[in-house]
Amino acid sequence: MTGKTWAFEDFIEGGSIDLGAKDVTAEEIVEFASEFDPQPMHLDEAAGKASILGGLSASGWHTCAMFMRLLCDAVLLDSTSQGAPGVDRIRWKKPVLAGDRLTGATTVLAKRESKSRPSVGLVTLRSELFNQRGECVSELEHTAMFLKRGTAT
Amino acid sequence: MTGKTWAFEDFIEGGSIDLGAKDVTAEEIVEFASEFDPQPMHLDEAAGKASILGGLSASGWHTCAMFMRLLCDAVLLDSTSQGAPGVDRIRWKKPVLAGDRLTGATTVLAKRESKSRPSVGLVTLRSELFNQRGECVSELEHTAMFLKRGTAT
Repeated sequence: MTGKTWAFEDFIEGGSIDLGAKDVTAEEIVEFASEFDPQPMHLDEAAGKASILGGLSASGWHTCAMFMRLLCDAVLLDSTSQGAPGVDRIRWKKPVLAGDRLTGATTVLAKRESKSRPSVGLVTLRSELFNQRGECVSELEHTAMFLKRGTAT
Repeated sequence: MTGKTWAFEDFIEGGSIDLGAKDVTAEEIVEFASEFDPQPMHLDEAAGKASILGGLSASGWHTCAMFMRLLCDAVLLDSTSQGAPGVDRIRWKKPVLAGDRLTGATTVLAKRESKSRPSVGLVTLRSELFNQRGECVSELEHTAMFLKRGTAT
């Protein structure tokens, strides 16, 4: 595991990590919603326009899933990640519409060593997604577990 | 909107709502993970067995998405739902493995009228998913908005 870019030691409190970008297509919005959240504003442009969301809009859970892919590509897949017990807070602040380009960033709010597992550290992250106008569309806070460098697995 | 089964008035504090069941397949686990959470334990049976999860396991976000579909089918699609601003807490307590059968229930923790929108009420729900052994695999708390009965939309 020592060859990974991101271990517990590499997260700096107050530091920010770029999560890259994701273009959101109408096809992806409808595909996700058809399976997991088939409310009209996530399935149909006219229904979206008639709603307070103002257009064909991604399910909030789809936005979370797109965030997770950005976090995987930027951090988790090249890390000592040991998963996460859950999420402490999600806010869907603005609609995510077909054609939007999302960019993400995550900030290290806090880190501490695990009391029960000396090889593991806990990293609390606050992540934000922005649209192409710079508006924050989603906020998410969660604590993830990472092995320390040089830990046998 | 008055023809809907679920309006603000129909949620009873302390009441529980059955969310039905969902069979989790290996194909669905891999399909979701390939797009949104391509960590090895969500993509490959052998990698899952080698992890602390003990088998090919659904992404936590996939579990959330399956919960949302159950909530849509049981409540939201036949309701006066006005969406939700986010989620206050998610806990992934046990692995969700290929072949599991999930069942869900949601409990009305609290309800109150909106101060800013007299036609809307806020309902706080605590939802749980269980596997076929009766183990709680996920908990989720969120507050959703519903129109009152007879409200013009």
